[in-house]
Amino acid sequence: MKKRIIVIGGSAAGPKAASRARRLDENAEITIFQKASDLSMASCGYPYYVGGLFDDRSQLLCSPAGVVRDAKFFWNAKKINTKVLTEVTSIDRKQKKIEFTDLTTGETGTAAYDKLVIATGSNARKPPVPGVELEGITTLQSLSDADYLRKIRDEGVIKKAVVIGGGLIGIETLEALHFAGIDITLVELLPQLLTFLDKHMARLVEKYVQTKANVILQNGVASFLGENGKLKAVKLQDGTEIPCDLAVVAIGVTPNNKLAKEAGLNIGETGGILVDEYMQTSDPDIYAIGDCVEIPHLITHKPVHAPFGDLANLQGRVAGENLIAGNVVKFPGTIQTGICKVFDYGVGSTGLSEQNALKLGYTNIETVVNASLDKPGFMNGNLLITKLVADKQTGKILGAQVIGPGDVSKQVAIWAMAIKGNFSVDDMVNADLPYAPPFSLAIDHSIATAHIMQNKLKGLFTGISAEQLKDKLKNRDPMLLLDVRNPNEFEETRLGIGERLIPLGQLRNRLGELPEDKNREIITWCKISLRGYEAALILQANGYSNVKVLEGGIAAWPWSRQK
Amino acid sequence: MKKRIIVIGGSAAGPKAASRARRLDENAEITIFQKASDLSMASCGYPYYVGGLFDDRSQLLCSPAGVVRDAKFFWNAKKINTKVLTEVTSIDRKQKKIEFTDLTTGETGTAAYDKLVIATGSNARKPPVPGVELEGITTLQSLSDADYLRKIRDEGVIKKAVVIGGGLIGIETLEALHFAGIDITLVELLPQLLTFLDKHMARLVEKYVQTKANVILQNGVASFLGENGKLKAVKLQDGTEIPCDLAVVAIGVTPNNKLAKEAGLNIGETGGILVDEYMQTSDPDIYAIGDCVEIPHLITHKPVHAPFGDLANLQGRVAGENLIAGNVVKFPGTIQTGICKVFDYGVGSTGLSEQNALKLGYTNIETVVNASLDKPGFMNGNLLITKLVADKQTGKILGAQVIGPGDVSKQVAIWAMAIKGNFSVDDMVNADLPYAPPFSLAIDHSIATAHIMQNKLKGLFTGISAEQLKDKLKNRDPMLLLDVRNPNEFEETRLGIGERLIPLGQLRNRLGELPEDKNREIITWCKISLRGYEAALILQANGYSNVKVLEGGIAAWPWSRQK
Repeated sequence: MKKRIIVIGGSAAGPKAASRARRLDENAEITIFQKASDLSMASCGYPYYVGGLFDDRSQLLCSPAGVVRDAKFFWNAKKINTKVLTEVTSIDRKQKKIEFTDLTTGETGTAAYDKLVIATGSNARKPPVPGVELEGITTLQSLSDADYLRKIRDEGVIKKAVVIGGGLIGIETLEALHFAGIDITLVELLPQLLTFLDKHMARLVEKYVQTKANVILQNGVASFLGENGKLKAVKLQDGTEIPCDLAVVAIGVTPNNKLAKEAGLNIGETGGILVDEYMQTSDPDIYAIGDCVEIPHLITHKPVHAPFGDLANLQGRVAGENLIAGNVVKFPGTIQTGICKVFDYGVGSTGLSEQNALKLGYTNIETVVNASLDKPGFMNGNLLITKLVADKQTGKILGAQVIGPGDVSKQVAIWAMAIKGNFSVDDMVNADLPYAPPFSLAIDHSIATAHIMQNKLKGLFTGISAEQLKDKLKNRDPMLLLDVRNPNEFEETRLGIGERLIPLGQLRNRLGELPEDKNREIITWCKISLRGYEAALILQANGYSNVKVLEGGIAAWPWSRQK
Repeated sequence: MKKRIIVIGGSAAGPKAASRARRLDENAEITIFQKASDLSMASCGYPYYVGGLFDDRSQLLCSPAGVVRDAKFFWNAKKINTKVLTEVTSIDRKQKKIEFTDLTTGETGTAAYDKLVIATGSNARKPPVPGVELEGITTLQSLSDADYLRKIRDEGVIKKAVVIGGGLIGIETLEALHFAGIDITLVELLPQLLTFLDKHMARLVEKYVQTKANVILQNGVASFLGENGKLKAVKLQDGTEIPCDLAVVAIGVTPNNKLAKEAGLNIGETGGILVDEYMQTSDPDIYAIGDCVEIPHLITHKPVHAPFGDLANLQGRVAGENLIAGNVVKFPGTIQTGICKVFDYGVGSTGLSEQNALKLGYTNIETVVNASLDKPGFMNGNLLITKLVADKQTGKILGAQVIGPGDVSKQVAIWAMAIKGNFSVDDMVNADLPYAPPFSLAIDHSIATAHIMQNKLKGLFTGISAEQLKDKLKNRDPMLLLDVRNPNEFEETRLGIGERLIPLGQLRNRLGELPEDKNREIITWCKISLRGYEAALILQANGYSNVKVLEGGIAAWPWSRQK
């Protein structure tokens, strides 16, 4: 008998599961129910369509061969039946059928399944404040949202917008609207952007984003103010009113678990549908995949809601195979690898940040910040700043955050593979990566970062983060602050926090100028803190017992400088 | 007592070892002997200086802070003594001293060591043919070679050159001279370029290089022809004479083991100095690093000569630490990861190629070729072609080759990490890599490659390589050749090898047009062979038992097409 497979949801995970199932069983009867009018949308591409990086909307819906993935495509190429603009309203697990409503005609119907896949995605959060229904307030989650914002871009009338939420989508939306020639204010409730980053790294991104838009932190929306039903301003919790004709809300998403919940399937602690490693729900005939589920974090083994397009596809592939072949393949989980583009910056992360690790109870961790070019200066290398987090005792790599105009994507991929491979820092120090000047430094930035971490774990030096130093400055700690760059570099740019300049090359001959008290705290740095490190070693060899290297040097200083 | 450390060789590995030693021991007496006049040259950057990608020669010698690494720099910043233009002529292991000659004055001297580091690099091979001493024949190994070629570029007189050797350096030199406006003929003795690639992949590179230069394979230099001591032509083994004023010889390098050999140190089977994992030679007081040593291949566990700049640096770091601290850190070996830029193409490889694996006795291997964009078409994605090699039984990843205008460097880095982490294909299929449209496809090219390999290992389809198909065409095998793209794609470009067009979307309805003999061999393909794969599955489900998918599709077809 032909297996009847129903997939609820036609965006990313759903079609992938359906396609995989078809490839493994030419005879199965496969139907996708999709509430929206389109199928297989490249939803991560919406910001780039809105921003005008490309103009042909159909590219968001195309197969690699350039064919729009509509109902006809799915039927002809994949023999998959699709019902768009059709909402599944309930699941009857006993009868193994679903009820649906045709949103165009209002007609209802039922369909029977042998195996069911729930890929209902997530819902965008909206702030529960007055005025949220005004015209001019949107999210950027659906293709119709993208159409709405693209129209605004093309019309060119709206000049001021507020983006609410400083996460991935908020930042991507900010970039898109900036490209559309709109003045942006970004409002974030928390004290930092991009909470997958540690504060220091987020502050560096914020400093850069500030050059393109107005960024307001630690402030939320109190209400939306309108005239004649149209948005005119956003009022913040501190009373500030920001005049604008457009507000994009990007304060996160929640798993759309409604159907599953109503059908009595188990829901996890994050609100995501509970699935096992086969992507099977508490009902063995029902699989769930994509943004509506929760999955294990591979480091912490705790469930997380990880609404990433790549994971949705991978889960779809796993479910599509399992529902045909029995539970034969596993989706192990996530290390929450993510990346976004912010103008000329890449911003990415994988594994645990220091903040997250501490929150989760990891106490014995070590971190380093490394700043260097991605390739040689003579090949027009660009800056990368990496923060690496490792377990102090085992040296196991727990996480990496990478930002900057350099090749962030490769760096994050390297660390994601290292974490997936359960690498320790010692495994990374002699990694054999592809080197040629057009692509990397002789010692790749990732390996150099591992070297610094290894040096730190061996106790060769003590680091101090920019934030720790800032705190010490506030407390007026009696430190000696030592910039060891060359005088011309010092003239060009400097922190201006009371530091002295002793170039590294002169340090050994000018030790006499240093404090007699060998226990005096000394902080050393240079542009990226390689020379700062060498200076610390010289000082330590000469008896100074309390020397710290400012990690990432001037390149990673997240506040304004004197010059 | 202060440890006396002598380092022979001041290019890459030597200075790294010296610097690491200094950082770990402020009091050691460290001296670098360097035969050339410069120190710490970024020798991998020579082709880009020759090609005019940058003009300031000192950038080849600069620290990241922009300071030329000369004797003064080494002394001031690192308290390292350097003797340039000074050749070490012998090592007296009993007395623990070296003899040297000042190449400027001719004076000789001796210097005693506690620990010695040999970093004498490699020698460029020259063909033993008549005329090799003519003016106009050079290698591109030393900075003076680079100076010579850069001068030729700047003068703009020479219009025709021959590059002898189609390896990494030959290809990079070809690019540089092409940028200098010189007509190039590349001559390679073997039947393919870049022997770290499999023939099919090399052929794809060759096809591309042919658009920039004349490429002659399976032909060697018989003699260099000159007039008045100046090169006028290269005569090939088949009698062809190629008029030219410049010939660059790039037929490989051999480890410079002379000093070590004369001192009675053990030399390995590749000609490289024998070292253990601590980079220690057969004399415990002598370490050897960089291009003059042989190191283990991490997959085959056989010794290899791996003259890569990145490995030289990593080995230097290991030796520098061990000679100070005792043997505490290890250099595990190489997977021979390499990459080069060829105009708009990246060409990289890590681990074993199929050819190498077969040569080494691996019999049970599986390969796939995957062609796809590196990121979505709407983000101006570029083509990547990957050949993956895995162990058939264990699924362990043995090697990957990646070429194309796409982001090759990231792909090779991912596979290098996978091999280092001892990943199987099953480990790769759900890798959690950084996804956003500016950086990758939702299913990254590397993961998609793993998916194809997994499908193949599971027996879901049988592949056929372009080369195998070419052979079958020669043999006039009675196959059905099936292109399953759309008619417009077929009109635009096609192989023209006798194929029929049945678009995938019509295949199920047109099965009646196929041979009645279900055992008839059918070869399917499309642009990248995803649809070709789906077509094969449909045919198999309908009883066809001998269906093969042309791997990599039209995108990876390495010969000329009809259109």
